[in-house]
Amino acid sequence: VILAGGSGTRLWPASRRARPKQFLALGDRPGESLLAATVRRARGAATGDVCAVTAAAQADLARTGVPGLEVIAEPVGRNTAAALGLAAVHLLARDPDAVMGALPADQHVGDEAAFAVAIERAFQAAAQADVICTIGIEPSYGATGFGYLEVGDAVESGIRDLYQVKRFVEKPDAATAEGYVTSGRYLWNSGMFFCKARRLVDDIRRLMPGTGAALDEIAAALASGGAVAADAVAARVYPSLPSVSIDHGVMEKTSGVVCVRGELGWDDVGSWAALPAVRGADADGNTVLGDAIVVDGTGNVVAADPDRVVVLVGVSDLVVIQSGDAVLVVPRERAQDVRLAVDALAARGQGRFL
Amino acid sequence: VILAGGSGTRLWPASRRARPKQFLALGDRPGESLLAATVRRARGAATGDVCAVTAAAQADLARTGVPGLEVIAEPVGRNTAAALGLAAVHLLARDPDAVMGALPADQHVGDEAAFAVAIERAFQAAAQADVICTIGIEPSYGATGFGYLEVGDAVESGIRDLYQVKRFVEKPDAATAEGYVTSGRYLWNSGMFFCKARRLVDDIRRLMPGTGAALDEIAAALASGGAVAADAVAARVYPSLPSVSIDHGVMEKTSGVVCVRGELGWDDVGSWAALPAVRGADADGNTVLGDAIVVDGTGNVVAADPDRVVVLVGVSDLVVIQSGDAVLVVPRERAQDVRLAVDALAARGQGRFL
Repeated sequence: VILAGGSGTRLWPASRRARPKQFLALGDRPGESLLAATVRRARGAATGDVCAVTAAAQADLARTGVPGLEVIAEPVGRNTAAALGLAAVHLLARDPDAVMGALPADQHVGDEAAFAVAIERAFQAAAQADVICTIGIEPSYGATGFGYLEVGDAVESGIRDLYQVKRFVEKPDAATAEGYVTSGRYLWNSGMFFCKARRLVDDIRRLMPGTGAALDEIAAALASGGAVAADAVAARVYPSLPSVSIDHGVMEKTSGVVCVRGELGWDDVGSWAALPAVRGADADGNTVLGDAIVVDGTGNVVAADPDRVVVLVGVSDLVVIQSGDAVLVVPRERAQDVRLAVDALAARGQGRFL
Repeated sequence: VILAGGSGTRLWPASRRARPKQFLALGDRPGESLLAATVRRARGAATGDVCAVTAAAQADLARTGVPGLEVIAEPVGRNTAAALGLAAVHLLARDPDAVMGALPADQHVGDEAAFAVAIERAFQAAAQADVICTIGIEPSYGATGFGYLEVGDAVESGIRDLYQVKRFVEKPDAATAEGYVTSGRYLWNSGMFFCKARRLVDDIRRLMPGTGAALDEIAAALASGGAVAADAVAARVYPSLPSVSIDHGVMEKTSGVVCVRGELGWDDVGSWAALPAVRGADADGNTVLGDAIVVDGTGNVVAADPDRVVVLVGVSDLVVIQSGDAVLVVPRERAQDVRLAVDALAARGQGRFL
């Protein structure tokens, strides 16, 4: 199940309300969207079916962008707990023993073979026992933009690199992050996880009763009236659901969470600062998408639409993005603060640029 | 005579080959072009006629941009010595005793009353004696982007603030410029000057004989066949003329140069760094043309076309210009280096952006 419902304001101005980041051509291959790259990797790694969950407004974008992709459309976005609960209900209607894996659509994976192996192990772990298995990434630096997992003992299961997860940790400050890396006991939380669909719905029922009740209604409609009936119920019950992430709503509160440790060349394409990891840099150390020239500068991330040009002279470590009717300039180290720009535009009544 | 033939690559990407900087709306009043502002000030200050010299390709832009402006069109641009020689020849055909004043089209004047007084004194000086009178600006800081005049003794003429000019000095380095300012003996070379038209043509004949001969041919055609005949001769002789500035070709080599000292709130709108002096800055210290937002930054110069937006987050003292199909980012202190961008575009075969 590909989670493709995000809005991705941190990739503004390339990402817009009408074209969220998972549809941007920021995949690992030229011209490939993040969603298409994620689907490609999932199809290559897993033996089961691949589908995506996205908001109804973007369902057509997803279907046309990735031929043959099954799309489960939410009437409105309510964050990842509801999205995965809805996907689980749909899977259970086909197979009461379904094992599901959830993959965010906005990730970069540098080592696809290692990725496939980790996926395989996680599916095995989820099929063998009543656990939720996530994938923990060996941290290569003290990232402050990711959450972390504190790992415990190895799990005796015959599956390699499988560990207990003691707790989920929010994005740390820089000093804490450095401590995590040197301790060897913390991994990046990749946001991928694997479990029996039944287990997930049970956890949601227990920990998020309102959402659980809504899912039960949708499941009943699915059993009695099929997809059309289920969509009608969803349209009615979804708007009042809380917007809660699967991490906050379930993972941090449930028990029996394990993880596969892996080094996947993984990165969360959550902000422009991640682009060099995805696309690499040229001989001058600049990462350039489109027609851009950097004179006497290094470490810049630059993007320009076709038939446009962006020119940088004498600046370094800047993000400069030209997309459509907007231009963004922000230091790489503050790339997360794009949301300040988005907030400022909204506050000034300039939502037409969002 | 307004010198309106420049190309102004240092104001790229707003200035383009097809729309040089004098036609940009960077005048002192909103929506006013630099050329229109210069013509307005000239008409307000001088009692005589106002005309402009520009390349034939831009003559229509000049005429439509400034209603009622007489335009002397050069077949091709050959820098300011030829342009002013051509203007002088045209003025002499009407009045052998014509006194002319030359004003670059790309200047900002903050104190228009002081400007009018300085113009009046310079015309007086040029009418009274066989001198070339320039206007020297009291330097307010050690600018490295301007040439300087070394002034000598006051001239006993009944005209206030009139001084001998001992020599012209090229753009200095920062330390030299500071020394100039503290010495009190150096003034910024404003590029404005005033003399009898006959004197200018004589100087060009003596110091630039090839150009002088061409001007004589044009003058003869003007006397015998009028403007049409003169234009035909100009079209034939102009392409082979050297491209030399009036400073290098005449002013640095001739004698009898004087200057009116003035404090005019003057600035050469030669690069984006000059824009704050022309347009001022907002409460956050940013100079913004068009729809731009600066979050957490100061000292920036930002421009955006209508219906576009430029957003800066966490950067200061940057020039960020969106114009048409191009975006430029350069530190304010390196604004002169826009020409490096222009050169890079030309070298890469991307002249379509110039």
